Amino acid sequence: MPGRVVKQARAERTRAAVLLAAAEIFAEQGFSGASVMKIADRAGVTLGGVYFHFRSKEELAREIVTGQPDFVVPPESSKGLQRAIDVTRVWAQQVAQSPMLRAGARLVWEQDRFMPGEENSHEQWTGLVMADLQTAKDAGELRPDVDVKAVARVVVNACTGAQMHSYVETRHEDLPERVEEIWRCLLPAIAVETRDGR
Amino acid sequence: MPGRVVKQARAERTRAAVLLAAAEIFAEQGFSGASVMKIADRAGVTLGGVYFHFRSKEELAREIVTGQPDFVVPPESSKGLQRAIDVTRVWAQQVAQSPMLRAGARLVWEQDRFMPGEENSHEQWTGLVMADLQTAKDAGELRPDVDVKAVARVVVNACTGAQMHSYVETRHEDLPERVEEIWRCLLPAIAVETRDGR
Repeated sequence: MPGRVVKQARAERTRAAVLLAAAEIFAEQGFSGASVMKIADRAGVTLGGVYFHFRSKEELAREIVTGQPDFVVPPESSKGLQRAIDVTRVWAQQVAQSPMLRAGARLVWEQDRFMPGEENSHEQWTGLVMADLQTAKDAGELRPDVDVKAVARVVVNACTGAQMHSYVETRHEDLPERVEEIWRCLLPAIAVETRDGR
Repeated sequence: MPGRVVKQARAERTRAAVLLAAAEIFAEQGFSGASVMKIADRAGVTLGGVYFHFRSKEELAREIVTGQPDFVVPPESSKGLQRAIDVTRVWAQQVAQSPMLRAGARLVWEQDRFMPGEENSHEQWTGLVMADLQTAKDAGELRPDVDVKAVARVVVNACTGAQMHSYVETRHEDLPERVEEIWRCLLPAIAVETRDGR
């Protein structure tokens, strides 16, 4: 039994190392520029070691894209509108440092190569932001005529564009400012009042 | 002399054909996937024919990116806020059909490979939208506290993100709707009044 536990722990570590290596390679070279061989090399694992955990390059990319929200954790106390804002803030602050988030950002464009049908990162993030905005609306934080789905889509679109431009100009360094700017422009249209000066 | 004019006209035609072929290849394969050889083949021109007009793949990409606004012409009568809206509308309606605009959209991500320093598509479009918003503000169409530069950046970011997601989901078919949505969400925050129901 102890032997089996050790083996399992080692397998988990290998899996995590492969995923991180894949994120780094995708972030640098995109989906089409990456290969399972490059990922194995980066992780210091054999090809067989990669294939033991993941069926294909597609599966690795899917895992990274669908896992994005796990890497963006807002303060537990934040709710409703504040939570929607905090999710985008935490994401913006971490993209420059996190290979997982950088890979997610880089893979947006190519996701039709590995994401199944309707499922995509835009829908995923829109759903998350929309849920917070709906909570905000139910709590009377938003104007009654606000279309939460439309606002969620616009927020996600604006964050996506900000991320791309921020990457080109500053390698994501000024992304937090750009995300603040998005909310500063949108809030007067959606919030009942902008408390604490935001 | 007539011989020279004919030659010049032919050279112009070749140049246009090379640029169009380059746009098609960039739109399909991105900057890194493209090569001068592929572009020459698509244009039905020799390699020498391409190099007679353009020094490199970089120069072709630069020409296409900086030329984007020439392909987006709003109605002559539209001014100020209406013009800013119309520019994004015309762009959204034409991306799906225009190889030049599709190439511009596809090259956003890779533009640090061929655009010099500060110059980039984000700055270019932000400058255009900002000029129209400033005219709108001077004419009293916008709230006095609107930061026209911030709004212009958010509009361009949101359009960029909308373009990417619309490409992944519908190959740009629903981009016009997404752009309307951006203005619908932003206008209550910036316009003094939303005339004619927009």
